[in-house]
Amino acid sequence: MSEKVGFVTMGQVEAAGEAPEIGVGMLGYAFMGKAHTNAYKTMPYMMYPPPAVPRLVAIAGRNEAAVAEAARRYGYEKYYTDWRDLVADPAIQVVDNGLPNNLHAEPSIAAAKAGKHIFCEKPLARTAQEAKQMLDAVNAAGVKHMVAFNYRFVPAIRLARDMVQGGELGEIYHFRAVYLQEWIMDPDFELVWRLQGDVAGSGALGDLGAHIIDLGRFIVGEPARVGGLLKTFITDRPGSNGQRQKVTVDDAFEAWVEFDNGAIGTLEATRFAKGRKNGMVFEVNGAKGSLRFNLERFNELEVHLPGNQPQAIQPGFTNVLVSEAYHPFWKHWWPHGHIIGWEHTFVHEVHHLLDAIVHNTDIAPYGATFEDGYKNNVIMDAITQASAEGKRVDVRY
Amino acid sequence: MSEKVGFVTMGQVEAAGEAPEIGVGMLGYAFMGKAHTNAYKTMPYMMYPPPAVPRLVAIAGRNEAAVAEAARRYGYEKYYTDWRDLVADPAIQVVDNGLPNNLHAEPSIAAAKAGKHIFCEKPLARTAQEAKQMLDAVNAAGVKHMVAFNYRFVPAIRLARDMVQGGELGEIYHFRAVYLQEWIMDPDFELVWRLQGDVAGSGALGDLGAHIIDLGRFIVGEPARVGGLLKTFITDRPGSNGQRQKVTVDDAFEAWVEFDNGAIGTLEATRFAKGRKNGMVFEVNGAKGSLRFNLERFNELEVHLPGNQPQAIQPGFTNVLVSEAYHPFWKHWWPHGHIIGWEHTFVHEVHHLLDAIVHNTDIAPYGATFEDGYKNNVIMDAITQASAEGKRVDVRY
Amino acid sequence: MSEKVGFVTMGQVEAAGEAPEIGVGMLGYAFMGKAHTNAYKTMPYMMYPPPAVPRLVAIAGRNEAAVAEAARRYGYEKYYTDWRDLVADPAIQVVDNGLPNNLHAEPSIAAAKAGKHIFCEKPLARTAQEAKQMLDAVNAAGVKHMVAFNYRFVPAIRLARDMVQGGELGEIYHFRAVYLQEWIMDPDFELVWRLQGDVAGSGALGDLGAHIIDLGRFIVGEPARVGGLLKTFITDRPGSNGQRQKVTVDDAFEAWVEFDNGAIGTLEATRFAKGRKNGMVFEVNGAKGSLRFNLERFNELEVHLPGNQPQAIQPGFTNVLVSEAYHPFWKHWWPHGHIIGWEHTFVHEVHHLLDAIVHNTDIAPYGATFEDGYKNNVIMDAITQASAEGKRVDVRY
Amino acid sequence: MSEKVGFVTMGQVEAAGEAPEIGVGMLGYAFMGKAHTNAYKTMPYMMYPPPAVPRLVAIAGRNEAAVAEAARRYGYEKYYTDWRDLVADPAIQVVDNGLPNNLHAEPSIAAAKAGKHIFCEKPLARTAQEAKQMLDAVNAAGVKHMVAFNYRFVPAIRLARDMVQGGELGEIYHFRAVYLQEWIMDPDFELVWRLQGDVAGSGALGDLGAHIIDLGRFIVGEPARVGGLLKTFITDRPGSNGQRQKVTVDDAFEAWVEFDNGAIGTLEATRFAKGRKNGMVFEVNGAKGSLRFNLERFNELEVHLPGNQPQAIQPGFTNVLVSEAYHPFWKHWWPHGHIIGWEHTFVHEVHHLLDAIVHNTDIAPYGATFEDGYKNNVIMDAITQASAEGKRVDVRY
Repeated sequence: MSEKVGFVTMGQVEAAGEAPEIGVGMLGYAFMGKAHTNAYKTMPYMMYPPPAVPRLVAIAGRNEAAVAEAARRYGYEKYYTDWRDLVADPAIQVVDNGLPNNLHAEPSIAAAKAGKHIFCEKPLARTAQEAKQMLDAVNAAGVKHMVAFNYRFVPAIRLARDMVQGGELGEIYHFRAVYLQEWIMDPDFELVWRLQGDVAGSGALGDLGAHIIDLGRFIVGEPARVGGLLKTFITDRPGSNGQRQKVTVDDAFEAWVEFDNGAIGTLEATRFAKGRKNGMVFEVNGAKGSLRFNLERFNELEVHLPGNQPQAIQPGFTNVLVSEAYHPFWKHWWPHGHIIGWEHTFVHEVHHLLDAIVHNTDIAPYGATFEDGYKNNVIMDAITQASAEGKRVDVRY
Repeated sequence: MSEKVGFVTMGQVEAAGEAPEIGVGMLGYAFMGKAHTNAYKTMPYMMYPPPAVPRLVAIAGRNEAAVAEAARRYGYEKYYTDWRDLVADPAIQVVDNGLPNNLHAEPSIAAAKAGKHIFCEKPLARTAQEAKQMLDAVNAAGVKHMVAFNYRFVPAIRLARDMVQGGELGEIYHFRAVYLQEWIMDPDFELVWRLQGDVAGSGALGDLGAHIIDLGRFIVGEPARVGGLLKTFITDRPGSNGQRQKVTVDDAFEAWVEFDNGAIGTLEATRFAKGRKNGMVFEVNGAKGSLRFNLERFNELEVHLPGNQPQAIQPGFTNVLVSEAYHPFWKHWWPHGHIIGWEHTFVHEVHHLLDAIVHNTDIAPYGATFEDGYKNNVIMDAITQASAEGKRVDVRY
Repeated sequence: MSEKVGFVTMGQVEAAGEAPEIGVGMLGYAFMGKAHTNAYKTMPYMMYPPPAVPRLVAIAGRNEAAVAEAARRYGYEKYYTDWRDLVADPAIQVVDNGLPNNLHAEPSIAAAKAGKHIFCEKPLARTAQEAKQMLDAVNAAGVKHMVAFNYRFVPAIRLARDMVQGGELGEIYHFRAVYLQEWIMDPDFELVWRLQGDVAGSGALGDLGAHIIDLGRFIVGEPARVGGLLKTFITDRPGSNGQRQKVTVDDAFEAWVEFDNGAIGTLEATRFAKGRKNGMVFEVNGAKGSLRFNLERFNELEVHLPGNQPQAIQPGFTNVLVSEAYHPFWKHWWPHGHIIGWEHTFVHEVHHLLDAIVHNTDIAPYGATFEDGYKNNVIMDAITQASAEGKRVDVRY
Repeated sequence: MSEKVGFVTMGQVEAAGEAPEIGVGMLGYAFMGKAHTNAYKTMPYMMYPPPAVPRLVAIAGRNEAAVAEAARRYGYEKYYTDWRDLVADPAIQVVDNGLPNNLHAEPSIAAAKAGKHIFCEKPLARTAQEAKQMLDAVNAAGVKHMVAFNYRFVPAIRLARDMVQGGELGEIYHFRAVYLQEWIMDPDFELVWRLQGDVAGSGALGDLGAHIIDLGRFIVGEPARVGGLLKTFITDRPGSNGQRQKVTVDDAFEAWVEFDNGAIGTLEATRFAKGRKNGMVFEVNGAKGSLRFNLERFNELEVHLPGNQPQAIQPGFTNVLVSEAYHPFWKHWWPHGHIIGWEHTFVHEVHHLLDAIVHNTDIAPYGATFEDGYKNNVIMDAITQASAEGKRVDVRY
């Protein structure tokens, strides 16, 4: 051959940038299993050089055929049909818990006791009490712990947080947020686990509301008190046995909130907003400016910051395509305007977790810890209590 | 001259279409005086043939120089510096009350006793109790009564109401509405009457919240119970004497609401939403479809009605420019796409009032009566009580 | 009565602010007759104090019943069925020509010879040659002359012009504009005058293209050369006799343009853009910023001016609601966010005309003179020639 | 362990679904190398089961340190510093050419002669003549050939094509498209290869215009004739030697186009549209409906299809979030509303290529073949000629 030829092996690639290998064990292979696994596989070459290279050691699930197929599909070395085996696997340093909510506590606590770092889907638990046990466990074990509040890793949302926390909006007066979906509006939609109170803990509140509550804390600060109501529009649905069974979670909730810093606002989540697919929308109003975000327009942040602008344009909101090299996370991606998608939040989040493990830095404040997860559950419990008792409830961690 | 020449007089124009003349007396010459007067002057030739031709008999205001100038500017035949004189004027059949809120009850009740029809600015009163007295007075007098909830006369909102009431959206699950402004955010903005509790009754609640509460009732139905909080961010401001004085109204309120028909939602109004000029935005979600409206995009209604559409486009919201000849009010205006503005709501509203007077038809349900105004005050009082007592409050008319 | 009562008469109102009365004669009572008349009636009290108070002396039209009705409806003192009589009426100082295009030249020239100021609908003429005769006539007569390029009087467009001409965008590289409508797409839509070449001169080019050509000149500067094509999609249509007749105008045109200052762009107008009601959209790109406007969102201007903004928001376009008191024309209207509509362009335009007459100031550069109208026709002729001959054509006035 | 444990190897994963392995050789490691490689790595588990599993055999580039790093980063087994060595590698079945435009022809022709399938970046060549040689070579070799017009693989664009070709819009009247960027507006931006005529062939025309020309052909049909102009705003720039050198490509072009089927429209591409990052926007107007797309809102398609809708909403455009399981490509991704990004076009495209190779199906019509690439070059040459000669030019393949 006329010029130099070089050979590299897969192993050499893994060693890129002196990055250590970290063994990952995945609990669950459905929606979140797919999203998280994609992140582990993509992060090392997209956010390059990576802090560590995830080694996909094992995936666990109860259906052997399905979990075996998932292992083949995604390239996990092994599969387990019992999560306990995965947690016990010495090659695994990070346990990623994408199981239903009722399986967040026990495996996570077991993993902590086994000295594994833990990345757990949200909501952290079904109740604040359950979450507290998980928090105590990870604190006792001294492992890294992160809750998958992945929207903290949307570039536009990180930018929003940085602007608010950096004081660019001045004193904050309002935070209003909704999370609107429509996927269970058919009264004959079956009673999946997300509609069963003993499994899910709550309905729209824990599934969707948890996200906007977390973003309120991430961007604005701690809530002080709340009022609100939960509602179930369709009270029975077909169960797995074909019989209609009672729905034991909320279909929607509405709440007002007052923050410690004096800001006030509304929170709402529903699965009965016809036409709204993934409609998480929030707005922050401060003394000097405002921000708006819509998850369905993931790459955009609307910013009103009249301060330095020419008078003619001071009244407006600027629609910022958050895709400049200087924007959060963007240096790892494409030329501006070549937008990224929902799945990439997990790529950023996994990077954050592995970086914290390798360099022993804090997950907080950019990542959500189990402490954030616990506080999230406290707030959800307060809204539930406010609804049940018809009164406002103070948030007490 | 080579062809026929015809002469008409102003008088003949007034007589157009056999329309009777109705004498109007205007209380107040500021913002609302200008908007209402423009409606009286424009309606007869734009919504042609008119049910009646308004005769601008008199305008009243306390500042003689100002009211005299207003009379000249707008073409009122007379001016008064005491509203009692205007109410007593026998040439006047309609008293239009655009005065501050503390001057809604007494002049309106006096006008009713004098047998005048009444068109009163919103909120109808400072409290439900005060509103009830006004309602009783007009009922006793048997005059026509309308509250200036002019947004009922936005073409897109009338269309929204007709769609919801016509069942096109099916059962309604959600109504969420905000009214966001920014005009008093400067802590040195003076303590105008709208910030004085004894004059205005309330702040953002009565000024802005009244509108979205009315639209909730107009579009969705009667509220059953509410929870919420009122907040004053800037607690003192410069008074007319230059000294800082206590602000005695709310700067913003947040509320949740449950309707009689089971729909739930949030209500919010604020004057502290930086960047938001006149941001009244609402959304309705029903079993079969959804609607969204933004007052700053007055001529548009976003509609999600997947029912009959090709599958490919079923997920979306259709942005409807409400300007076809078959849309509400539009036959009176321009070719489609030649949009109208905020002021035209009053043109439609005045047409509705005069039509009801001339043909002795009902103001309700399209116009807001004093009964609507009273119920509006009841709901505002309930929100205020919920805030004060930290509990949910049933709406009882 | 307890306080002072003042009486004013209609006559006193007319004399408001020492404003002189100017007699107006209107040619035509259809779409444009309605829009112009509304402007004459509204301007004196909305843009107060007015430079002059229009006196609606006479309206002319060939159908006596219709024109008599129009006179009654709008309050004209007289009607004529021959435009020559109106032009000869000594009480008339301004002739407003809202007739079809083939009746622009003769009445306007006659009016000029009679010493009347002239306000003529666009396009000024059917050809540049015809327009030149009109320009020569008004110049010889020394009267004021204005062509109804009313979009120059949209607040957002005036702001755009001021920003570009003030250098805020730096050197201009691009101007692209479309005017998209859909109203003749039905092949059985009849052959109205706007589809007859001998009456209209051209089709989409003269009706819609004239507007965007004017805005290109108003905002960016003089075109140097053009290329393009005209197209007629439906070549015959039902005539007034029920027989299908040949369509003798274009249904659409496409063009590229190069300006004297080096900017380049595209121009397009069509009546075959399904779903587009009144879709005039343009964008200007300069070295330092950009502007976008959409007539269906009349009150908004999108502005990209990164210069002084915080880095985070530099990439974006700011959606400016052009409704602040400091924005063009806005001090005459409402609080910000209370939007105005299409019809108000004429209110502003009539104010400009009467102001120029009373104070003997120039119509140009903010209003379009007959010279602007003539140049507009020259450019349209150049595009037509470019299409016919398949080559680029220099613009030579 | 308490339950079954399964072990899989990476090799077993590669064999998933009986998918064969296909060896890929990548030419170039910059922007397009990253995007294409990501697609090869992601496709097998996201679009599962894959038609084939790409084996990343080798990557080539002239800078050894850089190409070695790229190989490690992305997991290529080998690197080459001479493309000829990569083309000769027997383990490679697909040559992916992401080199600058002047290196499209020779390596692609060599690869064809070596019996490799070829995936070449766009524009296919610098001129139609060069493209024809490439087309002849792949035809002679009988290999699969695809040009990376990746926007054909945007879900919303595939949907647009299917709707238009399926007749849902009826006869097409208009296609207008722009591709607006801003990245070379600084006069001191250096003379990179994309600004050198001998390397790039053309500027905005070939880089951006090629895409919209391809989409015009993909969605609407073959162009019949064009007119237009090319323009270079900044005529010299700093070269690699620090001296200012002549810019030998266009900064922007404007064109009109008439299609064989009678549709007409405009085409424009520029790198001088301040504020526009990746602004590819097109609109199609047909007799029965219209479509609009904006690349910066990648997941949305605006559709006007009034046919079956309730009258009230017929006027509007429906903003469709193209993310339902039944939408093109979407079954491979996430729940609706969880949007994807620009990079995923390549994932779809690589799937299409490998599927065609494995099942010996046609690249056309959904993928762009070298024949499409050649025709694209013919049209670009016609626009260039039209500009140079100031006349319209027929498109002759």
